[in-house]
Amino acid sequence: MNRRTILTLLGIGAAAMAATPSSQAQSLDGADLAAIRNLIKTYETTWNTSDLDGMGRLYRRDIHWVNVKGMHWRGFEEVDQAHRAFFDIMFRGTRQDLEEIESITPTAPGVAIAVVRWLHGAYTTPSGNQVQSQNTRMTLVLAKGEGGWKIVQGCNIEVDAQAARFDPIRGQKPG
Amino acid sequence: MNRRTILTLLGIGAAAMAATPSSQAQSLDGADLAAIRNLIKTYETTWNTSDLDGMGRLYRRDIHWVNVKGMHWRGFEEVDQAHRAFFDIMFRGTRQDLEEIESITPTAPGVAIAVVRWLHGAYTTPSGNQVQSQNTRMTLVLAKGEGGWKIVQGCNIEVDAQAARFDPIRGQKPG
Repeated sequence: MNRRTILTLLGIGAAAMAATPSSQAQSLDGADLAAIRNLIKTYETTWNTSDLDGMGRLYRRDIHWVNVKGMHWRGFEEVDQAHRAFFDIMFRGTRQDLEEIESITPTAPGVAIAVVRWLHGAYTTPSGNQVQSQNTRMTLVLAKGEGGWKIVQGCNIEVDAQAARFDPIRGQKPG
Repeated sequence: MNRRTILTLLGIGAAAMAATPSSQAQSLDGADLAAIRNLIKTYETTWNTSDLDGMGRLYRRDIHWVNVKGMHWRGFEEVDQAHRAFFDIMFRGTRQDLEEIESITPTAPGVAIAVVRWLHGAYTTPSGNQVQSQNTRMTLVLAKGEGGWKIVQGCNIEVDAQAARFDPIRGQKPG
């Protein structure tokens, strides 16, 4: 079974390969790709079961996180505490469903970056605002250590569907 | 001159050190920190002079970028083309001023992550919307190669100033 076949079976095809021009080629073998996909699926499960302990086991100690509102949390304790606070206030029971792992790009030995699109379910803020379900696009920087792959940085953005029409690369073409 | 003195002189103090718990300690020497700070200042200069060629020289070939509206561009050609398109449409002459390099966290040998706060100047969209000046918070994943430090991933978020009051870590405390 060759590398391409393995990648295809893992559901990672042209995107992961094409994202790595030969001049910067790094390696991510099938086991690493599978472990990274598994981490992302585990993240989804911990979110959807409000399992903050499990979510925290995916973090490296020096994780930073920038959330959809631009808040910047630094280190395990802050990232963990902030997520627990928001689950207590408004996210417990809301869903965050994985739509697509758009890319997994090897950065250096033992480091990779995933870009993942989620569908975040509707929820109500403490002040009573009804927030509709919405796509978000999350960047996860992942590093491999003694405990396997862990998240060292997260950065999540609400996708602006109106603006997406004017994406210079993937937007609607005139005509 | 010891390490702490060098870091202080470089304007990187407790934040960069504290962000690296000993269990995950990686090293970034003074020269690397200076090079990363210089890259970020150069990024600022290229933005403010609409120097897209110079901006592109900061990218590694396999760069990905997720912009403030959640658009995902993959590889040098897409990131370069998309930025040129938006400069042509609305950003030429607008400013993006560096407010603070909030953290520089070593991830692995030759890989670091910076979180940077900008003040993005006011501009007008093609449809005539007046966008006020606004803080953004950018995550930059940086890797060191033969050509020095380069950007391998950018992820930029508009800071929601209203939401920031309710940041569980840095928001207003009940009073």
